[in-house]
Amino acid sequence: MNVNSNTNRLAGILMRYHKIPDETIRRLPVYLRGLLFLSESGQERISSRNLADMLSVNPWQIRKDFSYFGDFGTRGVGYNITKLIKHINKILKLNVVHRAALVGVGNLGTAVLAYAGFRIYGFDIAAAFDINPKVIGKKINNVTIEDVSKLRMLKKRNIDIGIIAVPRSAAQETADALVKAGVKGILNFSPCYIAAPKKVKVITIDIAIDLARLPYYMPSN
Amino acid sequence: MNVNSNTNRLAGILMRYHKIPDETIRRLPVYLRGLLFLSESGQERISSRNLADMLSVNPWQIRKDFSYFGDFGTRGVGYNITKLIKHINKILKLNVVHRAALVGVGNLGTAVLAYAGFRIYGFDIAAAFDINPKVIGKKINNVTIEDVSKLRMLKKRNIDIGIIAVPRSAAQETADALVKAGVKGILNFSPCYIAAPKKVKVITIDIAIDLARLPYYMPSN
Repeated sequence: MNVNSNTNRLAGILMRYHKIPDETIRRLPVYLRGLLFLSESGQERISSRNLADMLSVNPWQIRKDFSYFGDFGTRGVGYNITKLIKHINKILKLNVVHRAALVGVGNLGTAVLAYAGFRIYGFDIAAAFDINPKVIGKKINNVTIEDVSKLRMLKKRNIDIGIIAVPRSAAQETADALVKAGVKGILNFSPCYIAAPKKVKVITIDIAIDLARLPYYMPSN
Repeated sequence: MNVNSNTNRLAGILMRYHKIPDETIRRLPVYLRGLLFLSESGQERISSRNLADMLSVNPWQIRKDFSYFGDFGTRGVGYNITKLIKHINKILKLNVVHRAALVGVGNLGTAVLAYAGFRIYGFDIAAAFDINPKVIGKKINNVTIEDVSKLRMLKKRNIDIGIIAVPRSAAQETADALVKAGVKGILNFSPCYIAAPKKVKVITIDIAIDLARLPYYMPSN
């Protein structure tokens, strides 16, 4: 018992020592997307080199990233795609369905609601809120848009993620309301920094930021 | 003369040897956005530590990324924000305005047209195309939406970037048309892989992919 608990403590310390870099966590969804695509098309195995080619990344990077979670490729045979998907889903905690609430159903919000990509990763946009009476009551992708004043007790509705797609000026108060309603994570599409308590993770998306690295790769003439 | 040309050749070889990693290029826009934000608020200098805190990255990573372009921080004094912005803009080739054409003015496309973030990085969405007669002729953010059949000779209009926001099924033919019209880079919002000639750089954005790493950081209970 004592030995076991010591072993567990040691394992815990080693885990913390081998903290997975944020950059690896950032790349795992990219690998996951590629693997899901391959799985859909019926492929069973892939080498790190071919996966790297497909995703325009370095093969050694893929191998290094996967090495944080133990070795699950076999030299010369490649990775088992189904197993790899399961593994990454578990690491990213995507092996359970996460329910999300969207706030702001303007152009971007509507595009988010209609976007099939969220479901691929196991996300269910289960609620949507807006301030505009013309939009409230409408149904998009099976979600009826509610008055933002109803944005309470999301925890009770098993919603633990908030998606912000409101104008910049309303972003912080929306974040505050989401935190108060019990979400543990926020995806922010508003082009501004948002303050939240430490226990709530905020990821801000800038749809222009990927464009900013495009000219670097473009030929000059 | 001969010595000079040899020196230049050597410099070229060294540049190629010290190829800037894609991961660094991927992070530069993130730094740039933070620095632009600070500059706007009147700040003149920042330490790598404070910049790192603000952007939730490692300070050593920032210093390492910047070291690829020479050393432009002073120990104890920090980086000069204006100079740093200029430098990053030059590296990313954002020091000239790039004109872009948007194809697909549905919900996402409209959000893209209305999004102020592109101008921050020096992008001008100068043209927009759609297939829907109800949309053609409309003006959004000073851009009149044209019939997609007019999508030709963008090069003559000084447009070198294409932005794809059409349904998945039309993404590849849209990319083909953009390449034919002379663009050198494509930003693709459609959730699919796009084939293009080597000389045209394609960056695909998945607005769901950032959500996929959110649960990893969320507390379990």
